[in-house]
Amino acid sequence: MLISKYDGPTTMSVAEAPERARGPGEVRIRVAYCGLCGTDMHIFHGKMDKRVAQSQTIGHEMSGIVAAVGAGVTRVAPGAQVTVRPLAYCGTCGTCRAGHVHICENLKFMGIDTPGALQEYWTVPEGCLHVLPEGLALEQAALIEPLAVACHDVRRGEVKAGEQVVVIGGGPIGLLIALVARAAGADVRLSEISPGRIALAEELGLRTINPKEQDLVAEVKAWTGGPGADVVFEVTATAAGAAVMTELARPRGRLVVVGIFSAPVAVDLFKFFWRELDLRGARVYAAEDFEEAIRLAAAGALPLERLISATFPLKDIAQAFQFADEHKDAMKTLVQCNQQ
Amino acid sequence: MLISKYDGPTTMSVAEAPERARGPGEVRIRVAYCGLCGTDMHIFHGKMDKRVAQSQTIGHEMSGIVAAVGAGVTRVAPGAQVTVRPLAYCGTCGTCRAGHVHICENLKFMGIDTPGALQEYWTVPEGCLHVLPEGLALEQAALIEPLAVACHDVRRGEVKAGEQVVVIGGGPIGLLIALVARAAGADVRLSEISPGRIALAEELGLRTINPKEQDLVAEVKAWTGGPGADVVFEVTATAAGAAVMTELARPRGRLVVVGIFSAPVAVDLFKFFWRELDLRGARVYAAEDFEEAIRLAAAGALPLERLISATFPLKDIAQAFQFADEHKDAMKTLVQCNQQ
Repeated sequence: MLISKYDGPTTMSVAEAPERARGPGEVRIRVAYCGLCGTDMHIFHGKMDKRVAQSQTIGHEMSGIVAAVGAGVTRVAPGAQVTVRPLAYCGTCGTCRAGHVHICENLKFMGIDTPGALQEYWTVPEGCLHVLPEGLALEQAALIEPLAVACHDVRRGEVKAGEQVVVIGGGPIGLLIALVARAAGADVRLSEISPGRIALAEELGLRTINPKEQDLVAEVKAWTGGPGADVVFEVTATAAGAAVMTELARPRGRLVVVGIFSAPVAVDLFKFFWRELDLRGARVYAAEDFEEAIRLAAAGALPLERLISATFPLKDIAQAFQFADEHKDAMKTLVQCNQQ
Repeated sequence: MLISKYDGPTTMSVAEAPERARGPGEVRIRVAYCGLCGTDMHIFHGKMDKRVAQSQTIGHEMSGIVAAVGAGVTRVAPGAQVTVRPLAYCGTCGTCRAGHVHICENLKFMGIDTPGALQEYWTVPEGCLHVLPEGLALEQAALIEPLAVACHDVRRGEVKAGEQVVVIGGGPIGLLIALVARAAGADVRLSEISPGRIALAEELGLRTINPKEQDLVAEVKAWTGGPGADVVFEVTATAAGAAVMTELARPRGRLVVVGIFSAPVAVDLFKFFWRELDLRGARVYAAEDFEEAIRLAAAGALPLERLISATFPLKDIAQAFQFADEHKDAMKTLVQCNQQ
């Protein structure tokens, strides 16, 4: 079967490889599509070489069809359309026992710490599968994973219908958060500086603010009649985002840190005291976030197809990464791992 | 009657003044004791001159006896022992309407924005009074206000019995937070560097860690068996406190910002993402925090008398401030405004 490999900084290749042995409880998936994530681009640039082995197959935003099942598998049968929640947790640490398996103290992320989906066939434990409903296109289903991130973020922010929400950063995750919050009944403003991303967001009916051209704080104050937004999502992982987030939230407002900051950054802790703000970190997703993402996607509630910028066949994996790398404005780059 | 005044940086004086007119709904209190707060010391050093008028009477941590009541007052009669929740809120802003009157967008703090308790008689609106139970010494009752701060902080931290709690900073508020958390059934460690404060905390049965002499993070990891504390209170408003707080909390742990930071400070937002931490600011108190503080004090559950470092008569207000200024290790300095 054809697999792709990370061969070191900015080098992706394909190769023929033998099928991996399938153990009890494991499922072999014929991968349909796999999207490239920001983390994949980090790996591509060699920034995660301490964590990701050379020659490893990466990728974790996927859809596919069950090809075969191992002994003891009961939830799916060959032919089922599925996606994978790519988390392997220990189940025994204090965090798992407290019910937060998605931030397990010994978490392995499939496609980073173990082989991923950018290959023709991917063999995974049954427990990480989510079955897709009939009629959900596999191309869109490859976006279930990032959509589940957004569902988790919105859930962490406890966004309620009628609330005013600011999303700082309009990349794929920020845009999905804005769409999920809107689907939850919130009134949303998206802060973004890239003209291409602003144009796409506006086409999707989102209201945007460009902080390079407008006074973001003043705009949010005017929009909220003074006090600020109910919920603010920081999705840029920039010093500017961290500095402005506390300015945008009303007293007792909620801030959700989604961006992955590479170093400590200046935060106005006085504002936390003065306005009794509440900041929560949000990481990956729980099973219920995947189910919510699948529900939203299947209901056609979100314009997922508009977020797919380009699709490449698996044999052209190098071009796929090159495209994603050169088009910073692009949303999702998909790799088609098998013909349907 | 005798009043005290802030006459500009490091200058406090006493003077005779006419009794202030008492309007409908107002209560005249014969002040018993008034404690000096960190904020009073800030005022004393001229750091709040933009907010505090020259010649103003300050002070807000008090106990006293109702001397007279204005028209329409129904909750108290002369002779009642009371303390004051020194917040004047507008009742009409969005934050008040949402029920968070203590962080009212137009909040006036009595003793800072309006005249305070460091005088023989203090006239205040009936609504800010809390009646003290029989048998609670007025000297200890002057600590109800800072104790209510600690009750509010512990409530914001949602501290539960059996949880492991770290308090960073063992000044009066940090020490009270540690005592209130312990009274709530938590196991507490207090991080403090001052030998005098460490000695007092240990005398009160609290376990301390001196981060100048011990590795605070390693100690907390060992104590919690690895993952970190359930709740961390940052009460130092220092860069060191802000840097270490994220190291001390377990996955999904709660951080409470109590310290008043004068400038933005470096915070490890990556840890918020990775461990899904939750940070809440906490400011002053609600009515229920005052009631809880009174309940704890009246029950004799806390060694409040041990927190009183010195008491000065009102005529010696200058010496009282000088003492508090020169004894950074001291806990509460009280001013006795009337003989009982």
